[in-house]
Amino acid sequence: MTQLDINADLGESYGAFQVGEDEQLMKVITSANVACGFHAGDYNVIADTIERAKSEGVAVGAHPGFPDLFGFGRREFNMSPKEIYNLITYQLGAIAGVCKVKDVELQHVKPHGALYNMAAKDYEMASSIAKAVRDFDSNLILFGLSNSELVRAGKDEGLKVAQEAFADRAYTSEGYLAPRSMEGSVLTSLEEIEKQVLSIVQNGCTTSLDGKQIPLEAQTICFHGDGDSAYHHAEHIKNVLQHHSVDVKKVGGS
Amino acid sequence: MTQLDINADLGESYGAFQVGEDEQLMKVITSANVACGFHAGDYNVIADTIERAKSEGVAVGAHPGFPDLFGFGRREFNMSPKEIYNLITYQLGAIAGVCKVKDVELQHVKPHGALYNMAAKDYEMASSIAKAVRDFDSNLILFGLSNSELVRAGKDEGLKVAQEAFADRAYTSEGYLAPRSMEGSVLTSLEEIEKQVLSIVQNGCTTSLDGKQIPLEAQTICFHGDGDSAYHHAEHIKNVLQHHSVDVKKVGGS
Amino acid sequence: MTQLDINADLGESYGAFQVGEDEQLMKVITSANVACGFHAGDYNVIADTIERAKSEGVAVGAHPGFPDLFGFGRREFNMSPKEIYNLITYQLGAIAGVCKVKDVELQHVKPHGALYNMAAKDYEMASSIAKAVRDFDSNLILFGLSNSELVRAGKDEGLKVAQEAFADRAYTSEGYLAPRSMEGSVLTSLEEIEKQVLSIVQNGCTTSLDGKQIPLEAQTICFHGDGDSAYHHAEHIKNVLQHHSVDVKKVGGS
Amino acid sequence: MTQLDINADLGESYGAFQVGEDEQLMKVITSANVACGFHAGDYNVIADTIERAKSEGVAVGAHPGFPDLFGFGRREFNMSPKEIYNLITYQLGAIAGVCKVKDVELQHVKPHGALYNMAAKDYEMASSIAKAVRDFDSNLILFGLSNSELVRAGKDEGLKVAQEAFADRAYTSEGYLAPRSMEGSVLTSLEEIEKQVLSIVQNGCTTSLDGKQIPLEAQTICFHGDGDSAYHHAEHIKNVLQHHSVDVKKVGGS
Repeated sequence: MTQLDINADLGESYGAFQVGEDEQLMKVITSANVACGFHAGDYNVIADTIERAKSEGVAVGAHPGFPDLFGFGRREFNMSPKEIYNLITYQLGAIAGVCKVKDVELQHVKPHGALYNMAAKDYEMASSIAKAVRDFDSNLILFGLSNSELVRAGKDEGLKVAQEAFADRAYTSEGYLAPRSMEGSVLTSLEEIEKQVLSIVQNGCTTSLDGKQIPLEAQTICFHGDGDSAYHHAEHIKNVLQHHSVDVKKVGGS
Repeated sequence: MTQLDINADLGESYGAFQVGEDEQLMKVITSANVACGFHAGDYNVIADTIERAKSEGVAVGAHPGFPDLFGFGRREFNMSPKEIYNLITYQLGAIAGVCKVKDVELQHVKPHGALYNMAAKDYEMASSIAKAVRDFDSNLILFGLSNSELVRAGKDEGLKVAQEAFADRAYTSEGYLAPRSMEGSVLTSLEEIEKQVLSIVQNGCTTSLDGKQIPLEAQTICFHGDGDSAYHHAEHIKNVLQHHSVDVKKVGGS
Repeated sequence: MTQLDINADLGESYGAFQVGEDEQLMKVITSANVACGFHAGDYNVIADTIERAKSEGVAVGAHPGFPDLFGFGRREFNMSPKEIYNLITYQLGAIAGVCKVKDVELQHVKPHGALYNMAAKDYEMASSIAKAVRDFDSNLILFGLSNSELVRAGKDEGLKVAQEAFADRAYTSEGYLAPRSMEGSVLTSLEEIEKQVLSIVQNGCTTSLDGKQIPLEAQTICFHGDGDSAYHHAEHIKNVLQHHSVDVKKVGGS
Repeated sequence: MTQLDINADLGESYGAFQVGEDEQLMKVITSANVACGFHAGDYNVIADTIERAKSEGVAVGAHPGFPDLFGFGRREFNMSPKEIYNLITYQLGAIAGVCKVKDVELQHVKPHGALYNMAAKDYEMASSIAKAVRDFDSNLILFGLSNSELVRAGKDEGLKVAQEAFADRAYTSEGYLAPRSMEGSVLTSLEEIEKQVLSIVQNGCTTSLDGKQIPLEAQTICFHGDGDSAYHHAEHIKNVLQHHSVDVKKVGGS
């Protein structure tokens, strides 16, 4: 029986600044990527988010980002491999510390925003991330864009990896996410989203924005936690998947 | 043979803002309190500081503070017990994470600045700190002002504690640090500092600013890392202590 | 004909963190209190907010707060009179600078959050605020809680002041806002809000939470920009006021 | 008689983080570039720095930077022309506000760090800066690297500009500062510095690192406020210049 994980980015509030529909999403997803306090999240939000994930039976992952609250981690920073390594280690430690006192297992690591996108294409940066994850805890699963340099680097460091696809984003023929500025880059109809997810799960491919069939292997599917419709999309797709006998469960599950 | 630990606050630089004389102090002290990124320190400084401590054979402790870079953690914040617990957990996790990848043992925890001073008098706050330390790692040693509520809370939670005295600060007759605004509150001559440290080590007491003998038990002595003269004071006192057959070693040492 | 100003706190977003229903509120209010970048707001949000106020014909005021993004300016800070003066001056300058390049007149100043509440009771702090406003531009109108120390200090420094009442908050018999922790402190029904506003405008008084009639003079009424219902409340009350022949216009209007 | 301005970057401390030797430099320079709170400086430091400049007779300029305390404004950010405009306006307003209450005239604007270097080569960015300065106050003098796009953009917007040269930095044959990574890029001997400054002032040129004579017009010379030797270099060069009958005075002086 085919197995698939559904993940979302959560815990992105900061002090009085409220972000996302965490409470609802937690009821649908199987893995939560928890912001670590650098691009979003704070020590209170992190603790509450991990507690909620625990009570909902959702697996917890660290979602480290660039130190850029103002830019929400979406701006590119040039950093040396050593700085990337330090950046990841600190944030992993912080999240793992909260998991420890809450008696929650840390399942995975998924870089956020610009860090994720840069590491998808830049092997050196990807390798620094993978090395930090490996040195911190070699049992952690590294989430990366399907077919990306991050996935490759994770494998090279001996990590378990989960290839990630996006339910509601169109792809270029090279297998990258089509930039948001391109028309049709964001899938908004449930039909389109459903079609893409089923094609990925059943056939290991999807159709690119310019009409080519591209290979797209995925063990985990992302729904964006800061969008209005993430919850409704995720809930619908989860039902569809289960109807098609896909076992929707956390990627680290046995 | 009497044993004493010498500690200092290190790793307090932030980006391009340089603080302290860490390189020199590391050659003299036996325990380093490493800022965790909230009142000072950043993920690069933390990594470098822990590496240096390792190479110098200095024990590493977490030095968590209020989330207040602008105020350097010296301003008082009112926080609920739950928030204090979250605050400590996050920072402990971050430092412990860096220690883990550097293969360094985390020895102790010493709250910083206003958090330290508030916890010295406020049992509820002290208790939240102690509970966070215990839940995170019950083998960590809690550093607190000698005879303070923090020491009491640490013992109540079953933690090992190290009572701390200040080499160069005068005390009130109640056993608190004399406020810096009082004349004579900061000891500047090596003779005074030497006399106070020897009295604490040999007799378990010192003389308060108003001339009373007060009990002052200490397993660790602090020299301020951000003062110009910390290194010279610490080096001199270390020699004096060794001359008096005091074994200067990290508090967690066997 | 009676005249009344309706104000709200706007421009409280920060980077990707979206706050408030500014677009709608701008269509109803007559004065906007624009966050200055310390407790909320950023240089882009400020520029956009002032532009929108200009195009909607809404008067612009500075809404300075404590330097506390994480706490949204709601936490108390102890600051010397000199620091309060510096705090206000910087933020006034920044907002006035943006007004200048947008060719918009700066009408008023209303302290935010804890700064507002502390200055309502602490004459020394209120006086520092008033002196900074006076030195920066003595034509600015100072908004303060009706009957507060801030109003008194403003008058003492020769400033025009606007006494402020809250449409949806109950008062204590001493004339302060009833703390949110008290039952009934927040008025949620349009009937209650309408009754309170009309009583203030027509009779210069309201009924306190414990049933006493208290004097409450107001030239401006506040609706909270970060609440969900601010827009609907403000729109309704504006209609009610106009129906009762109250001239709803900016406080600085001739 | 030839006239020359000597400027330095000041007011770069932040809270407890102390930077620079402002007190000494203020006794030698004729123009101070005051950090505006984004890459360095805070509202207290700014107020104190402007007061000190006033009492020493030093002209005050705004020294706006990227919003990057952690990177001290030295990291490059991609920003739209509109965002650059907003960034400059806010910071100009803040500094001008403090100047106003201190009764000090704001003389000039000099972008900081990466903003300065990017604007030296990027006309679009330079133009956004120049437009913000012009719209805020068209009497302000814009400081830019000699022969740079920033100087060109300032002139195109009708601003007075001051071309700036660096006393202790070697130049490439294209007229840019030689990167610090190149050997010989920083002049450390007083003889070299003296030779370069005199060549600029007397002949309007200097010799590049690879031995070519390049034109280098300058109305103001910069000494770096965060270096250890800035004060001694500036003091020496000032004496040398006066000995050579150069009138060392603020660039805006009549």
